[in-house]
Amino acid sequence: MPTAAMLVIGDEILSGRTQDVNVQVLAQALGAKGIGLAEVRMVPDVEAEIVGAVDALRSKYDHVFTSGGIGPTHDDITADCIAKAFGVGIDVREDARAILATNYADPENDLNEARLRMARIPDGAALIDNPISKAPGFTLGNVHVMAGVPKIFAVMVESVVATLEGGAPLISEEHRVESGEGDLAAPLAQIVARHPEVSIGSYPRIVDGRFQVNVVARAVDRAKLDAAMADIRTL
Amino acid sequence: MPTAAMLVIGDEILSGRTQDVNVQVLAQALGAKGIGLAEVRMVPDVEAEIVGAVDALRSKYDHVFTSGGIGPTHDDITADCIAKAFGVGIDVREDARAILATNYADPENDLNEARLRMARIPDGAALIDNPISKAPGFTLGNVHVMAGVPKIFAVMVESVVATLEGGAPLISEEHRVESGEGDLAAPLAQIVARHPEVSIGSYPRIVDGRFQVNVVARAVDRAKLDAAMADIRTL
Repeated sequence: MPTAAMLVIGDEILSGRTQDVNVQVLAQALGAKGIGLAEVRMVPDVEAEIVGAVDALRSKYDHVFTSGGIGPTHDDITADCIAKAFGVGIDVREDARAILATNYADPENDLNEARLRMARIPDGAALIDNPISKAPGFTLGNVHVMAGVPKIFAVMVESVVATLEGGAPLISEEHRVESGEGDLAAPLAQIVARHPEVSIGSYPRIVDGRFQVNVVARAVDRAKLDAAMADIRTL
Repeated sequence: MPTAAMLVIGDEILSGRTQDVNVQVLAQALGAKGIGLAEVRMVPDVEAEIVGAVDALRSKYDHVFTSGGIGPTHDDITADCIAKAFGVGIDVREDARAILATNYADPENDLNEARLRMARIPDGAALIDNPISKAPGFTLGNVHVMAGVPKIFAVMVESVVATLEGGAPLISEEHRVESGEGDLAAPLAQIVARHPEVSIGSYPRIVDGRFQVNVVARAVDRAKLDAAMADIRTL
């Protein structure tokens, strides 16, 4: 199965001001395509941190998706960091400028210096369409650079993931047990051992003060998943 | 300001099945204490990934907080991974076993082998109280190991963070501008340059189809924050 990592760029998540919602959107889109999200990192708007994380992740995984930092303000440094990570140049690109210009009645005046920052694209990158606010993302090598605003992130993910070569999608089912994990750990371990090609996880929750466990099984093969679920439903 | 990182351990976040909520809880608790959350990583239930991330983070930051993987089931491998990262032994510890036993009317029978896994504590660690389900977390060196269940995570964070030496807490204020970022980027850059000791971020949102920007300023010093906010409110 192809692998992917996500890099969330931005002080607003790390400060606790904003609740991230993009990780789950990407994870679900990749899962449906048969690509496994294997790691997520969240780093601040600091060049060395972004460059270091991009380099670590792009050499380890088939794909890297970044969110955030591609707007027009002083703290939007993602595009420059990607160029630095790849050792390529970056400048305003005419096709990106033309796309931005369609946003304005009077682009000559409205497409100011700050907005033109959003047309700065690292050399060799392919643009990612942004039907909501026009400012494009881009793909360079195996790194897909997308906006952090959740609505824009979601449409960019959809268009990028559609172009990728996926694996066999994991199918999953779950079974809820109304008890603590301690009671089902031993029988569950036996079930796990009997179904080596099924990935089985046990996720405790507290609902209305009572412990519940969701046992989730994932597999590529429907028959193997069904066999494991038959065992899991005996818990 | 002291720094911290968080390591979220668990396939359920990376698969997109579960929305993480623990990052924000930790970020806010650390912020109030004057400790900066500088990085987050999310990794699957895989020993090499957990050990590698713990080692990378504990050498780089003052504190590391982990969530997840300390229950009784086969996929709960965090305690063993921490022992491995530190190169210390791990076994059932009597004080942890005694705490778990208080959960059961008949501990001799109910405290089964699976539940006893939750009393396996790396050598040299200090226990973290869990008033909700008893199974303790632990602190080893600068690594604080906590449950992933949000309610338990939150009480463990509260008790651990209270014991840490903090810095001067950042105070923050925000100002909302009803426009796109492109219009305020240039004046905002001038404001940022005028207030070097204030950290200023610009966070675009789409609300009912219209662009908004939250400009957030953070500083240790109230007077400096007020001066920056006076400028920001002119935007």
